[in-house]
Amino acid sequence: MGVRIITLMIKHFVLDVDGVLTDGRFHYSCNGKIMKVFGPHDNDGLKMIRDKVAIQFITADARGFEISYRRIWRDMDFPLTLVSEKDRYAFVSALGFEETAFMGDGYHDAPVMRDCALSFAPSSARKEAKAAADIVTESAGGNGAVMDACLYLKEFHFDRV
Amino acid sequence: MGVRIITLMIKHFVLDVDGVLTDGRFHYSCNGKIMKVFGPHDNDGLKMIRDKVAIQFITADARGFEISYRRIWRDMDFPLTLVSEKDRYAFVSALGFEETAFMGDGYHDAPVMRDCALSFAPSSARKEAKAAADIVTESAGGNGAVMDACLYLKEFHFDRV
Amino acid sequence: MGVRIITLMIKHFVLDVDGVLTDGRFHYSCNGKIMKVFGPHDNDGLKMIRDKVAIQFITADARGFEISYRRIWRDMDFPLTLVSEKDRYAFVSALGFEETAFMGDGYHDAPVMRDCALSFAPSSARKEAKAAADIVTESAGGNGAVMDACLYLKEFHFDRV
Amino acid sequence: MGVRIITLMIKHFVLDVDGVLTDGRFHYSCNGKIMKVFGPHDNDGLKMIRDKVAIQFITADARGFEISYRRIWRDMDFPLTLVSEKDRYAFVSALGFEETAFMGDGYHDAPVMRDCALSFAPSSARKEAKAAADIVTESAGGNGAVMDACLYLKEFHFDRV
Repeated sequence: MGVRIITLMIKHFVLDVDGVLTDGRFHYSCNGKIMKVFGPHDNDGLKMIRDKVAIQFITADARGFEISYRRIWRDMDFPLTLVSEKDRYAFVSALGFEETAFMGDGYHDAPVMRDCALSFAPSSARKEAKAAADIVTESAGGNGAVMDACLYLKEFHFDRV
Repeated sequence: MGVRIITLMIKHFVLDVDGVLTDGRFHYSCNGKIMKVFGPHDNDGLKMIRDKVAIQFITADARGFEISYRRIWRDMDFPLTLVSEKDRYAFVSALGFEETAFMGDGYHDAPVMRDCALSFAPSSARKEAKAAADIVTESAGGNGAVMDACLYLKEFHFDRV
Repeated sequence: MGVRIITLMIKHFVLDVDGVLTDGRFHYSCNGKIMKVFGPHDNDGLKMIRDKVAIQFITADARGFEISYRRIWRDMDFPLTLVSEKDRYAFVSALGFEETAFMGDGYHDAPVMRDCALSFAPSSARKEAKAAADIVTESAGGNGAVMDACLYLKEFHFDRV
Repeated sequence: MGVRIITLMIKHFVLDVDGVLTDGRFHYSCNGKIMKVFGPHDNDGLKMIRDKVAIQFITADARGFEISYRRIWRDMDFPLTLVSEKDRYAFVSALGFEETAFMGDGYHDAPVMRDCALSFAPSSARKEAKAAADIVTESAGGNGAVMDACLYLKEFHFDRV
């Protein structure tokens, strides 16, 4: 969990949705997945750095895509792409690992985290993700973890380069 | 976090909504922000002091305003004003900092907290808000934090002046 | 918080609803209070003792009454009465304090708790209620606190008399 | 809570729903039980082992059956059977205890847990279930407990036989 030397400017900040911008839980009625819970503070943090880095969200949750889309694209105005777990590594690789920061919380996020320039996991992430992340935030997913990551990027990266 | 000497009677108690009277979370469906979660005890506390101080709520959450309005204005009968983050300091300043107590939980609340006569942050607030507050309540936002602040105001201020 | 000597058989078990059988939170939409969250295990516990004691629930929440009624009367088949905070003491007194066990979580429950034969507070209760209760359960309200109280009543009272 | 010697290959993995795959809570409106909260990671875990063991879910919750069915059968594609608490032991016994792993969280799950080849309880389970389980997972129900159990089965059982 030590911080690597980042030699290039970070150009991309890619974030997973469920468990990162939400608490990871799915509210089900008899009609299926109908709600997700987004947290406070995170949008404040993203606003602080959105003019310095290309921010985008990726999700493997096809059934809940409309809900994530409503929050992320319509209300927060960030790109959201449906990327399956097995294509996640290739997707981030195509952006260029050495210029990309990544935030995720799942078992399958670990390989991406190890190869990105900088990786974040919320305190509520799977232990496999936390073990692979450079930075484990103080806050949990859906409760300020993204704000923590944005403040870190601002203070220790963008304000210094 | 030590308590300042308050030389004037507190006339205004201004509270943020999300993360203070709620747990800060936004429930989203594919139709957008549809629910917030308000907690127990807080209305009991506000009733104890509402004849002694002018209580009002402010919020920067335009999309969730109708939900907050339903709880705060319709059910609890307190004023609720939409004030953007950047206008918050001027709004409270216009009431008179030296006669105003404030309760907030966010990164941008810290400057207001430093200048008010007395400031409260829930235990669940951002660390930046907690560092700026005079009093960090035992309870979390949406789970009794406002009750804690009201009991404090009653016992250590209104019952003594 | 020591346990009093109970000299008579407990005939009544009176429980508050919000914060005891629920987690105390109110889910609001722009249409008002629309949901409450009830927990697991509690109905299992109540079933264990319902042939030994008259169980009833009281609530001061008029706006959420229909929700509480749906769970408690319709699904669990227990009486539910709307009793305001100020009438709570008299209501329980009329049953006979010396034959009544009470479970509550609020600031205003403390006087009832002190005079009942046996009183319970969930671990998530206001500290004022916990200080007045004979027994603070290991579990939180809406998360097994009522099951804990039922097991206590079964093991330390009904199985012994 | 020590791990027993398992002499036969595990053929069945039977899981309770509420408190295991969910956080155990029931969201009520005035129309009754309308929502349950399922967690992240668990489906990822079940996918890892579904070709090695017959996975099925059982539930005693008749009123919430349609919600559980929507998640488990329709979205995750696993069998779900309504089995009352009193028939649970016989149901699992008929599969053959010595070839069955079981995961549960309730007071009445303890006897099944004691007789199965391997039993799991989430960290959030009733203490009676945790005392009877071979393995108490690090994660809570509805928050990765099933993922933990699947990783355990994969690493310490299926990868070794």
